[in-house]
Amino acid sequence: MTRSLDALGRALGYRFNNAELLEAAVTHRSAGSRNNERLEFLGDAVLGYVIAEWLFEHFPDAPEGQLSRLRATLVKRESLASIARELQLGDYLRLGSGELKSGGFRRDSILSDAFEAILGAMVLDSDSGLDASRACIYRFFADRMAQLSAVDELKDPKTLLQEYLQSHKLELPAYDVLEVTGKAHDQYFVVECRVGGIPEPARGEGRSRRRAEQCAAQAMLAQLENTV
Amino acid sequence: MTRSLDALGRALGYRFNNAELLEAAVTHRSAGSRNNERLEFLGDAVLGYVIAEWLFEHFPDAPEGQLSRLRATLVKRESLASIARELQLGDYLRLGSGELKSGGFRRDSILSDAFEAILGAMVLDSDSGLDASRACIYRFFADRMAQLSAVDELKDPKTLLQEYLQSHKLELPAYDVLEVTGKAHDQYFVVECRVGGIPEPARGEGRSRRRAEQCAAQAMLAQLENTV
Repeated sequence: MTRSLDALGRALGYRFNNAELLEAAVTHRSAGSRNNERLEFLGDAVLGYVIAEWLFEHFPDAPEGQLSRLRATLVKRESLASIARELQLGDYLRLGSGELKSGGFRRDSILSDAFEAILGAMVLDSDSGLDASRACIYRFFADRMAQLSAVDELKDPKTLLQEYLQSHKLELPAYDVLEVTGKAHDQYFVVECRVGGIPEPARGEGRSRRRAEQCAAQAMLAQLENTV
Repeated sequence: MTRSLDALGRALGYRFNNAELLEAAVTHRSAGSRNNERLEFLGDAVLGYVIAEWLFEHFPDAPEGQLSRLRATLVKRESLASIARELQLGDYLRLGSGELKSGGFRRDSILSDAFEAILGAMVLDSDSGLDASRACIYRFFADRMAQLSAVDELKDPKTLLQEYLQSHKLELPAYDVLEVTGKAHDQYFVVECRVGGIPEPARGEGRSRRRAEQCAAQAMLAQLENTV
């Protein structure tokens, strides 16, 4: 037995005029044809836009590549699923019997889709366009938004490069030491970073292999962000 | 010498309060640091949302997979570049000398990015949020939107499957005849459709090999759209 949707409305801080929209938003396709797939399509676009708008405003000096990375961090499936868990969305899901038995109410994909579908349903339900969804997004993303800046700046270039390549479905990088000069305790490294499918390797130099690799990763990242 | 931006404002049907925003939107990164990369990030999200909202409303019976395909068709780079050409956007671009010499004002990627950047600039410039961008999108996509329904319905399942696989970066399908029964002029075909990386093949049957393949493609498409 799933919980009544009134409690979900309270958790969302939004009272639906049309309760059927909220009902559809928490209905997985396994439970019938009036399900949340179309609403999720809409909600995904709402979320993408609202987050882009917020990042644009709050990171006035961030280049496009950083804005894209920050958005990917915010809207990734695990983040949405974790917000859905804060809302106890699993308790409200309408699932078919197969999904119910296999624990679909705990699955990241089902939870995150339902959260996006709720954002889509709000846009349709509200008289004020995006405002209700935007308010809901700000409320549930507040902590994550506040942590963003710090997190992204703490990440080293190799990690950022790897995330960039994964998000663009590119191969992971290979690092090769081209040159080591100097004596044992005063060495200097030249490293090359290559990415499959990218013709130009990038170079980095430094007093340790790690420093040289980070420097090469930074150069590769800059190159990729300027050639897309 | 590039054309004055007043004429571009007229072509867009929108008068910018802050002319610097439009100036930035047509400035490629090769021309300086006040360029259109951040605006393009915002405009891409605006376009994605406005098109999703429109499709949701105008295709009330389309499943999510079809909405995604229709959106991909509308917002693909070549479509945006062709709208940019209707606006003669190439004449207004601010490019660095290298891009100028190599004909950057004709390049699809530069044109489509600038068009998206203009949509982002409108959202920032306008007092009414998305409305100005939405009106501009409706105006420039009107013909393409009108043709959408017809085009998608005319496409056969093999074409739709191929487009789906390409847009999801999956391997192209292989079709194999499993069984042919009946006499020369009354044959019946059973065909299997396989896609690399997808464990379950799909089957189709029909009175011609082509019909059986179309049927198998349809089944594979349905399977893929239900397992993402």
